Amino acid sequence: MKVDVLTLFPEMFPGVFETSILGKAQEKGIVSLQAINFREYSGNKHGQVDDTPYGGGGGMVLKPEPIFNAVESITGTDSENGAVDPSKKPPRIILMCPQGETFTQKKAEELSKEDHLIFICGHYEGYDERIREHLVTDEISTGDYVLTGGELPAMVVIDSVVRLLPGVLGNETSAITDSFSTGLLEYPHYTRPAEYRGHKVPDVLLSGHHRNIDVWRRQQSLWRTYTRRPDLLEHVEMTKKEKIWLEQQIREHEQKNEAE
Amino acid sequence: MKVDVLTLFPEMFPGVFETSILGKAQEKGIVSLQAINFREYSGNKHGQVDDTPYGGGGGMVLKPEPIFNAVESITGTDSENGAVDPSKKPPRIILMCPQGETFTQKKAEELSKEDHLIFICGHYEGYDERIREHLVTDEISTGDYVLTGGELPAMVVIDSVVRLLPGVLGNETSAITDSFSTGLLEYPHYTRPAEYRGHKVPDVLLSGHHRNIDVWRRQQSLWRTYTRRPDLLEHVEMTKKEKIWLEQQIREHEQKNEAE
Repeated sequence: MKVDVLTLFPEMFPGVFETSILGKAQEKGIVSLQAINFREYSGNKHGQVDDTPYGGGGGMVLKPEPIFNAVESITGTDSENGAVDPSKKPPRIILMCPQGETFTQKKAEELSKEDHLIFICGHYEGYDERIREHLVTDEISTGDYVLTGGELPAMVVIDSVVRLLPGVLGNETSAITDSFSTGLLEYPHYTRPAEYRGHKVPDVLLSGHHRNIDVWRRQQSLWRTYTRRPDLLEHVEMTKKEKIWLEQQIREHEQKNEAE
Repeated sequence: MKVDVLTLFPEMFPGVFETSILGKAQEKGIVSLQAINFREYSGNKHGQVDDTPYGGGGGMVLKPEPIFNAVESITGTDSENGAVDPSKKPPRIILMCPQGETFTQKKAEELSKEDHLIFICGHYEGYDERIREHLVTDEISTGDYVLTGGELPAMVVIDSVVRLLPGVLGNETSAITDSFSTGLLEYPHYTRPAEYRGHKVPDVLLSGHHRNIDVWRRQQSLWRTYTRRPDLLEHVEMTKKEKIWLEQQIREHEQKNEAE
């Protein structure tokens, strides 16, 4: 997979791209990650990439030319002359913006099947609407919060996509983090020491009784998901026994709350 | 404000901390950002920070000692002896994890009022539950996707918080990005050229008629929010005129869809 990030701040990326899983995936030749300063494609000698908005108002707006030019330089195509190489799968051109669809694990899985991703990151500025309408294939937001630019969200998307590529994760690392995919939140983990500052590991985990441990972990996952993210429970398949257990827990919890 | 990040990959941070708004906020002395390798606080000569989980299963679990020790070293307190400095506001100790509360702009505003934030970032591993129960004050997730570690989400939270600190953003940069706070998605932006590859800027924005421009922008925001994020509309105050306009748009849109 090839990943190109268009940004005015390429210096934000090497520390992230060269470390840990992303660094290893590049060393293995599974992915190639590049941050490109689109100011180089401004098409004017001052390197101007933004301008004041038509219709007035504050802020600056990214001009269409630098972004269109940079994308076409990367893809080796020219949308004016239509010289697209028909043997290549077209790249996904992804605009990071608060108006985009909310990023989820499902979207990560979808993008992990592509050959080439191009991310466009604005910074302070808005985007000229023609970039959105006539160039990009996807608009993604990673959540409902305001950031200085699209760079950090692009890193988030890239990390979540690259770790799904075959050969990137060893089995030992994938097991624990992938529990999100089951639709439930993770059960509590404990490691040595068995007692730390008076706080003990639950007896069941020290019992060596694997059936009991499995039941305890599943119940902890269910209860944690119920209390923290009940919206996720809708899509979870439970056995009849588990349903009864959860309902009983909820009843006991409510009675306890009323008594207090 | 002081921000400390506990991580096994401190090399991921300088490129982000020294660039753009975060770099400027540090130069102005408004915030101090530091990434600390908690392996230095492992308390054992091998620098071991994780271990296999009690009860079996895959993956590794971060041990409690390195995290407790690192936090106490930063805060100058010792929770065993209770030697907390009563003149200091206690820090917020934030665990980045998928089970945490979903990060929002409201949470960013809340955290921006603090003096000291400490972020704990796991990487592949799970956390020993005693860290969650007996050390941290907040658990935050930035969204429903699986990442390699808490480092990128911590950067996201830090960026969103620091840009809210007084003196960090100039007026010119705050105006355009803060429109999220109105509860509506942004209206489309356009800048020069008025025509690019045959795609024209809407006439109203070139008209110079400010009242019409304001109405057009508000309608575009309403319609974009309705089509992309209807969940946000619930909390938006609309005039009677706007409600009627939006209802009419929806009707026309539905009739058009039926006709097709």
